[in-house]
Amino acid sequence: MFTFEIVARDGAARRGVIRTPHGEMETPGFFAVATRAALKGLDPQAARQVGVQALICNGYHLAVQPGAAAVEAAGGLHRFMAWDGPLATDSGGFQVFSLRHGQIADELKGRRRLPASPADEDPLEAVHVDDDGADFRSYLDGTRHRFTPENNMALQRALGADVLFCLDECTPFHVPQAYTHTATERNLRWARRCLEEFQELGMASRQALYGIVHGGVYPELRHLSARGIAAMGFDGFGIGDCLGETKADWYGVVDLVCPLLPEDRPRHLLGVGEPDDLVEGALRGIDTFDCAMPTRIARHGQALRFGLPRFRLNLGRPACRTDDAPIEDGCQCSACERFGRAYLHHLFKAKEILAISLVAEHNLAFTVRLLARVRDAISAGRLEELRAEVSRLPPAC
Amino acid sequence: MFTFEIVARDGAARRGVIRTPHGEMETPGFFAVATRAALKGLDPQAARQVGVQALICNGYHLAVQPGAAAVEAAGGLHRFMAWDGPLATDSGGFQVFSLRHGQIADELKGRRRLPASPADEDPLEAVHVDDDGADFRSYLDGTRHRFTPENNMALQRALGADVLFCLDECTPFHVPQAYTHTATERNLRWARRCLEEFQELGMASRQALYGIVHGGVYPELRHLSARGIAAMGFDGFGIGDCLGETKADWYGVVDLVCPLLPEDRPRHLLGVGEPDDLVEGALRGIDTFDCAMPTRIARHGQALRFGLPRFRLNLGRPACRTDDAPIEDGCQCSACERFGRAYLHHLFKAKEILAISLVAEHNLAFTVRLLARVRDAISAGRLEELRAEVSRLPPAC
Repeated sequence: MFTFEIVARDGAARRGVIRTPHGEMETPGFFAVATRAALKGLDPQAARQVGVQALICNGYHLAVQPGAAAVEAAGGLHRFMAWDGPLATDSGGFQVFSLRHGQIADELKGRRRLPASPADEDPLEAVHVDDDGADFRSYLDGTRHRFTPENNMALQRALGADVLFCLDECTPFHVPQAYTHTATERNLRWARRCLEEFQELGMASRQALYGIVHGGVYPELRHLSARGIAAMGFDGFGIGDCLGETKADWYGVVDLVCPLLPEDRPRHLLGVGEPDDLVEGALRGIDTFDCAMPTRIARHGQALRFGLPRFRLNLGRPACRTDDAPIEDGCQCSACERFGRAYLHHLFKAKEILAISLVAEHNLAFTVRLLARVRDAISAGRLEELRAEVSRLPPAC
Repeated sequence: MFTFEIVARDGAARRGVIRTPHGEMETPGFFAVATRAALKGLDPQAARQVGVQALICNGYHLAVQPGAAAVEAAGGLHRFMAWDGPLATDSGGFQVFSLRHGQIADELKGRRRLPASPADEDPLEAVHVDDDGADFRSYLDGTRHRFTPENNMALQRALGADVLFCLDECTPFHVPQAYTHTATERNLRWARRCLEEFQELGMASRQALYGIVHGGVYPELRHLSARGIAAMGFDGFGIGDCLGETKADWYGVVDLVCPLLPEDRPRHLLGVGEPDDLVEGALRGIDTFDCAMPTRIARHGQALRFGLPRFRLNLGRPACRTDDAPIEDGCQCSACERFGRAYLHHLFKAKEILAISLVAEHNLAFTVRLLARVRDAISAGRLEELRAEVSRLPPAC
């Protein structure tokens, strides 16, 4: 029921098709992030209309609210959220452990927590991890939950997505290498337990399980993890854990990891999706991406387009107040087809939530359109040309 | 360019068609409230798809943000907000004066302000009214603005809607009759000045102007106002000002006013739109309604349906958590066609704004569908039967 076919190559880049019980996904392709079984502010039908092929939800968030049983009772995630296309669920490990280690903002602002240790059992700590699994508190009501590889597979079976990810601990940049080493080895053991449970529960007939490569920014740990995960026989592979501080850091990780993974399985780069990232990832052999950025920046009035700075048009700036032009000429999203920047500027000033829906739809349309260009460039052997074009940005307008 | 044709009658009720430069509106019909040039959370195209015929925006809010010049530069409100159907603008008088008199919540909670008097010129007061017009402060930045009948017509000309309302002072329930008397007489003078300016500016070729009947809950003042307004030659009539505390109060006002208005012009009941209100208003000869309730209650998880209490289903209540049924069987809105109550319950719990869009769409679909039934009932001479059906509510489910 789950297959991956490569139809064209351009250097390390591959164009392909992932087939799932809920339809196909062309690759390189994008999983739009629907953390709590909803794209932020956007009807999934609108996302489908602008070309979004696949969604990814979050196991942690859905376990806490509404709970796996409620989703299962509603007929599974596809039916619950009215999305009949390819759908993935992340284990929720990232979210559980970000409670422990703090957010990126904590790193940037120097609010570092101590690395975990066996003595680190302060009941105030939100997360406790041991070899068997991880205890965490609900972000909603403080109730205790526990994830183990086994119950996480049961959770993701109940949710019923097409593509699942193994439970993993995602280490942040600020922990010592020794901690990352420990976590990487534990993640390998957890991956094996996830795979065994996945097989035990008979899930393989309708779901696919991806292993995740860990190891932070340490080449030897990435080697260790990639070789271990690659040997286990997963349907596909995520490249996760800490990818470093700079783009060069993650280019290095992906350059190192992709050649170690089986050629015939899809490779997913977790949590990366800036426009240039999509091209750089594809060039290195990444097949799928997911990233909350397109919908997140919409909430702050930022629209994706080719231009400086950082591919963003800030709709809140005064110059947009009297600008009749669409965000992007030729874009066929609702925002660009029917509204000018002046109207969108007004909606943000007036705090109208319609603004968020419209810009989220545009940002997803932009992202999936760029990936369609990536696929065409691979077929034409011209991905390097597309990279040159994307990096040679016109000035912001 | 603006006509009103009555095509059927049932007692005092009339079925008709309002024709505007931007298309037709069947009556009894509903103007969905798009205060700041946006339906709260809903793309106007989605509203159109569920049968919304017309929108109404607010002059005060648009004068403050983005300003009439910005809307005019964008080609007028229709183009600015991508709505090509019938569109009305209220003068903004209600909002200006609610700053002076306080909100309904203030009345309920006893936070009463003193009635205005010539001595009432405290610079801290948000509004100062004199015979010429009213000064008010922007709710956004505190800047001073002034509305006069003349500049309000210029504002509404720049906005470019099809149906305009005269500038008026809307008195609340708690002011003395003497104040309402003074305001009612001033509103008559303002109505004449609005009409003269409307004609002076040559607006009648593409816009229609409605006079508004005032007089609070005082029959003699309603008589005074209705006769005065009816004699001036407006394209249509609003019934505004304070309509009382109970439904019986406004039934009485409408029963009194409608027979005093010209038979051949449309009558709009300002700010009223509960399901039973639509039937009761139509029975008394009201042709159009506007009300923010359908979109406002959506933000609080309340979906309209036939049932107690008050035609509302509270999607936040625990019973909805595992309820797969749509809000309303047979409803063709996006919420009912694709999602169950359990999903909508989840979205509200998870604070996903998609919930607001979906329930707003349902609530507007419910409202316009009920009015379609009202029109059919008028044609069939069965509006009393529909009233009986609506008042004989099934128990909440």
